[in-house]
Amino acid sequence: MTAAEAGRPFTVEPWCVREPALHLEAMGQTESVFALSNGHIGMRGNLDEGEPHAIPGTYLNSLYERRPLPYAEGGYGYPESGQTIINVTNGKLIRLLVDDEPFDLRYGNLTRHERVLDLQAGTLTREVEWASPADKTIRVRSTRLVSLTQRAIAAICYEVEAVDAPTTLVVQSELVANEQLPQRANGDPRVEAALAEPLVSEQHRSESAGATLVHQTRQSGLRLAAAMDHEVYGPESTQTSSEATEDIGRTTVIARLKPGETLRIVKYLSYGWSSRRSLPAVHDQVRAALAAARFTGWDGLLAEQRAYLDDFWITADVEIDGDAELQQAVRLAVFHVLQAGARAERRAIGAKGLTGDGYDGHTFWDTETFALPVLSHLAPDAAADALRWRRSILPQAMERAEQLGLAGAAFPWRTIRGHECSGYWPAGTAAFHINADIADAVRRHVAATGDLEFEREVGLELLVQTARLWRSLGHHDSAGEFRIDGVTGPDEYTAIVDNNVYTNLMAQLNLRYAADVAARNPRAASRLGVNAEEMASWRDAAASMRIPFDEVLGVHPQSEGFTDHQMWDFENTPEKKYPLLLNYPYFDLYRKQVIKQADLVLAMQLQPDAFTREQMSRNFAYYEAITVRDSSLSAATQAVVAAWTGHLDLAYDYFAEAALVDLGDLAGNTDHGMHIASMAGTWNAVASGFGGMRTDRDGISFAPRLPSPLPRISFGVLWQGRSLRVTMTADEVEYRLVSGPPMRLRHHGEALALADAPVVRDMPPVPAVEPVEQPHGRGPRRRHPG
Amino acid sequence: MTAAEAGRPFTVEPWCVREPALHLEAMGQTESVFALSNGHIGMRGNLDEGEPHAIPGTYLNSLYERRPLPYAEGGYGYPESGQTIINVTNGKLIRLLVDDEPFDLRYGNLTRHERVLDLQAGTLTREVEWASPADKTIRVRSTRLVSLTQRAIAAICYEVEAVDAPTTLVVQSELVANEQLPQRANGDPRVEAALAEPLVSEQHRSESAGATLVHQTRQSGLRLAAAMDHEVYGPESTQTSSEATEDIGRTTVIARLKPGETLRIVKYLSYGWSSRRSLPAVHDQVRAALAAARFTGWDGLLAEQRAYLDDFWITADVEIDGDAELQQAVRLAVFHVLQAGARAERRAIGAKGLTGDGYDGHTFWDTETFALPVLSHLAPDAAADALRWRRSILPQAMERAEQLGLAGAAFPWRTIRGHECSGYWPAGTAAFHINADIADAVRRHVAATGDLEFEREVGLELLVQTARLWRSLGHHDSAGEFRIDGVTGPDEYTAIVDNNVYTNLMAQLNLRYAADVAARNPRAASRLGVNAEEMASWRDAAASMRIPFDEVLGVHPQSEGFTDHQMWDFENTPEKKYPLLLNYPYFDLYRKQVIKQADLVLAMQLQPDAFTREQMSRNFAYYEAITVRDSSLSAATQAVVAAWTGHLDLAYDYFAEAALVDLGDLAGNTDHGMHIASMAGTWNAVASGFGGMRTDRDGISFAPRLPSPLPRISFGVLWQGRSLRVTMTADEVEYRLVSGPPMRLRHHGEALALADAPVVRDMPPVPAVEPVEQPHGRGPRRRHPG
Repeated sequence: MTAAEAGRPFTVEPWCVREPALHLEAMGQTESVFALSNGHIGMRGNLDEGEPHAIPGTYLNSLYERRPLPYAEGGYGYPESGQTIINVTNGKLIRLLVDDEPFDLRYGNLTRHERVLDLQAGTLTREVEWASPADKTIRVRSTRLVSLTQRAIAAICYEVEAVDAPTTLVVQSELVANEQLPQRANGDPRVEAALAEPLVSEQHRSESAGATLVHQTRQSGLRLAAAMDHEVYGPESTQTSSEATEDIGRTTVIARLKPGETLRIVKYLSYGWSSRRSLPAVHDQVRAALAAARFTGWDGLLAEQRAYLDDFWITADVEIDGDAELQQAVRLAVFHVLQAGARAERRAIGAKGLTGDGYDGHTFWDTETFALPVLSHLAPDAAADALRWRRSILPQAMERAEQLGLAGAAFPWRTIRGHECSGYWPAGTAAFHINADIADAVRRHVAATGDLEFEREVGLELLVQTARLWRSLGHHDSAGEFRIDGVTGPDEYTAIVDNNVYTNLMAQLNLRYAADVAARNPRAASRLGVNAEEMASWRDAAASMRIPFDEVLGVHPQSEGFTDHQMWDFENTPEKKYPLLLNYPYFDLYRKQVIKQADLVLAMQLQPDAFTREQMSRNFAYYEAITVRDSSLSAATQAVVAAWTGHLDLAYDYFAEAALVDLGDLAGNTDHGMHIASMAGTWNAVASGFGGMRTDRDGISFAPRLPSPLPRISFGVLWQGRSLRVTMTADEVEYRLVSGPPMRLRHHGEALALADAPVVRDMPPVPAVEPVEQPHGRGPRRRHPG
Repeated sequence: MTAAEAGRPFTVEPWCVREPALHLEAMGQTESVFALSNGHIGMRGNLDEGEPHAIPGTYLNSLYERRPLPYAEGGYGYPESGQTIINVTNGKLIRLLVDDEPFDLRYGNLTRHERVLDLQAGTLTREVEWASPADKTIRVRSTRLVSLTQRAIAAICYEVEAVDAPTTLVVQSELVANEQLPQRANGDPRVEAALAEPLVSEQHRSESAGATLVHQTRQSGLRLAAAMDHEVYGPESTQTSSEATEDIGRTTVIARLKPGETLRIVKYLSYGWSSRRSLPAVHDQVRAALAAARFTGWDGLLAEQRAYLDDFWITADVEIDGDAELQQAVRLAVFHVLQAGARAERRAIGAKGLTGDGYDGHTFWDTETFALPVLSHLAPDAAADALRWRRSILPQAMERAEQLGLAGAAFPWRTIRGHECSGYWPAGTAAFHINADIADAVRRHVAATGDLEFEREVGLELLVQTARLWRSLGHHDSAGEFRIDGVTGPDEYTAIVDNNVYTNLMAQLNLRYAADVAARNPRAASRLGVNAEEMASWRDAAASMRIPFDEVLGVHPQSEGFTDHQMWDFENTPEKKYPLLLNYPYFDLYRKQVIKQADLVLAMQLQPDAFTREQMSRNFAYYEAITVRDSSLSAATQAVVAAWTGHLDLAYDYFAEAALVDLGDLAGNTDHGMHIASMAGTWNAVASGFGGMRTDRDGISFAPRLPSPLPRISFGVLWQGRSLRVTMTADEVEYRLVSGPPMRLRHHGEALALADAPVVRDMPPVPAVEPVEQPHGRGPRRRHPG
């Protein structure tokens, strides 16, 4: 049962997500929503005592294990093994014995259970009042944080109060490696076997109030250290001792409390891993981080966390008046995007961040296309580091291109550390657009930050190698047009097609931008072997890029011949057959007009200048009617283009769908992790959709429009060293420079100068438009019926 | 090392294939070439004593084991398990101890070793003279047959002569289940495990001079019985005894021979299996068959075998004057096609017949498209039974269609007993043309035999269900054309395309023929639910079938947009990179103009009336230049269309390539079984290519043309109850009615009446044509240089 079916587990509040009572049936969802991460360490919102759980999860960015990729019929270039994120040593675990009975919510009497994710404090707190089966009542209060300021550190403050009788407490605070995990449904037994106990012990040590465990992953050979230390505050007789075995570190605290007395334990946790450093080096690294955290202290960590977030929210806050649920959802969304990337530091940002095991922890094009536009404007260092990670895997991408018979770099469709991990090439290898998506992320990041050094030092090589890929992947036909055949665009219900418009437009941009940046940085380009002939060949290919157009229908076909295909029989497809990929074969999905996720519409979002206003409206209407949104990567894009084409209420509906995907468990799989791309798309829907924000080398412009049910939306954006806030109401829009030097911007085409004083402009009227239709039963939930 | 590299193991003789000395390095090839089969039992040409071997193989048609089909990323409708042919109880085994040393060719001194496959006798004989390491010389002579007249029976006459000294012989004649097999290269360990010991013993019994073993397959639960009995002729002191254990039946014969004396053992073998019959029933069935064989006796079996083949060769013989190598090859080819189908009797005819384990023993479209045209004209009962097998798996095919969301029947791309066993849908499920190939085989069979009862009783249901498939698979576009999108044609280097010309033409024929047969059999059609509206909808779809044509190039694109694709870079593809599928990724093969095997050219062979003479010539030239023949299914078709378009020497080259694929091990994989489709294509190249034979409901016609190096070709054909022989020389052609009532035929369009007296006509002159070119390095070997 999904949480949506079970009733909403969360209350609606502006700055936190509160679960006022325990929803056992929604445990998987709450574990993901309550996950804490700094982009390096991720901890699912598992209960302190470990059980009951849906999916126990502690993750370290890019710490993976190899798993076999089997094929019924193999083929050249198929990857033989994949990479999968693993549940590392669990340091969240604090077990509690109340007199002689274990604290377990499934037994005894739970009179109060509240959990709160505080988006300003960056903490997950929990308050419990529980009577043991023997009727001994205690109160437990825990606060957990994964530090945004000290990358290796997490910490927990754990307090137990004896309520009405003297109580003996035994607290076992642990590090546990190779936790037993729930069996995956339909798991391949060989894969299950490979991942059953992925960690091999290398060292285990205990200190007086802590322990350190060092392990290596069995196949991938990565070294991982986890350490803990404790501060214990309790009655004088309280005893603390520690022990360690291969897979367990345990600090035991025994205290006898009188009624009203509290035992308070602060647990400091430190994590580190390396593929190259020695055992002593990794061991010492986590102990040093732990020492620094203890030096900071619990209150210090809390204060640092809040200060970091206060600074973030100045720009990042989005205010949505008139819809408290979305107000909460959009802040949670921005928070999770930050958590996914904040301290990833040249490692990948996964599709689920570090909130769950979904998609094996892989990174896809989601990062560049959905998450980075947000980070470039709200946490630009994180965006830059994500692109530096891409540059760091260029060797693997170039090797892959060579294996595929192509020039330049072919980035993996899904990966953790750079190797292609896709076991289904029609929706993996063939989806070459990821390379242009990376190039476009560079372009957008440079436009957002004005960081030309980054463009030269990091961007150029990415641009050159992806441009080379496109030049070798496409060819000129006899009519002189540059075609890219046999590839797969964003829509996963269509594959292996010729001249996918999205792909060709993005490749065109990639080729042009690479030539431009190379021309502006001739020495750096020359070091990469780029000469004038090569740059000219990129520009030529871009100039003659084929963009198919259906003259009869007056729309762009998603790819060559697409609009000649049979329409999916939406009328006779019952609701329970969605998502279609679980109930219909790929061959049938591929050959019919049915779209899983925005593809041509995404092309319009990312390259609006390639379409006339009329084409945009006609295309949007055409693709609305065949898009089923079986992917969470779709609604936010539809929101943007709906807003641009004047369908503002529809944009509002899609915005809500994107924002609520995890709070409402709309896809039914939030238990496996947060939909980071949809979270990010929520912000894009505000800034790009309603705000009409666009950036390029020439500047930043806005074209604000507001859906009528919403009286006010305010959002902020970092732009080239400035923090700018845009506040829209029904009648007017205010542009305000929060910090940074004076700047220029455009408002619906009008050039404005902005300095200390805010500038206010009228909102233009929104012309009435013909309504568009979605496939039978697949329209978004109306946010305001009627 | 392939045999081609090692030097040819065989001599050239008209009616047999002789290996005059043992070629250990070509053991895999000789085991396949020397395989004996009646379509029910198949025995590879393994040595009597079992070792050395390349691949030991004894097969029973359709006796399979299930194997898991794993996927790195699964999908709806993917088959979870496949079927694979297994090596059943080996009854060929006769071990020999010479004094105290085992008869093993790898030791001692081999002074003579000859094996002969006699195409008139239907036997494999072997003569060996061998001195043991202790220098005791013996002669061994064995003759093996798999009876074409007694379906369950094989027999071996095994003689050992002491040459120059008194010798004690111990002969162990065995039945061995679960023989240890050589490990497959790159085998999936799970699959290896599933197939390691596939047979579970149910019963083992020995008689005085024989034994019976009954087993069940472990996963698929099929019951199999093998029995043997012996006649022993030796000196008076000769002793015979038998024993049986779970997996071994053994008859031991001990004899002491004086020099010049011979021990002669006749071994009778009987096989049977059933998915439903009880253990006693299957046991008794093989014992009864064995009793009948002993009653017939060895000489009787030999005589029956020869009589069966004499009768066959009257029509089936093909005479090729002027090319002794091809003379031999074409007879071997026809022989192996017969062996594959003769007594299959409503079971499948596999791509390798029963000569090896290649392709897991699966049956593909090869059967209908390549093998059945031969069998319909040379052994029509076998062809009819193969189509009855197809009808018998209609329930599985209809279930598969339903699973795929289609009407009618979707026959499996590869199977043994009806379930889809393809683990790669772009070249499996998407290759829907197999359904029209089956329909066309019905049409050709009825045209060849005139058997309208078969058409109604067997053909109609196949036609109706396949027509329904096409009607649901295609759709009318807005211009009113009927399109079939997202399918894969015969060429496996192109997949998932729109309007593959081959597929659309074959579907058109299928739809029309189904409507015609239904109209002629209204009551039978009505029982299948066919009404006038449905028939009209088939005819309408056929009439508006889209056949794309490239007006600029003046050729048919293989599928929509094909001729716009990039040309494969043949110049820079070295010889060692072929076959391309082992060295380039599918995505690249699919999106470029490079063809594995005849596709559009096959469409021209099977539906010549759909093309003008000029289109045929232009198309042939265009596709010649991009066809690399990485499939053995190509050369014979290219031979036919080369002949039709006047490229007679080229046709001769392709004919030779098809004919010699196994004798020359041209594909390097003859060790895994004979290429039955290529064997059959050899006959098609003669009859259809050089003979210009075409049949339809209106009659039979010829348009003979001879390549200049060949002075004479003669071939026979059964046509509607007649045996007809066509003999071509450079100047004239003779049509002779060997048996059957008077008939009419057409010679190059001229109507002729044929009765007792032969009719002779001039061969028309062959106009000169522009030469065509093949891809760099991929032309066929010139048969007559210069």
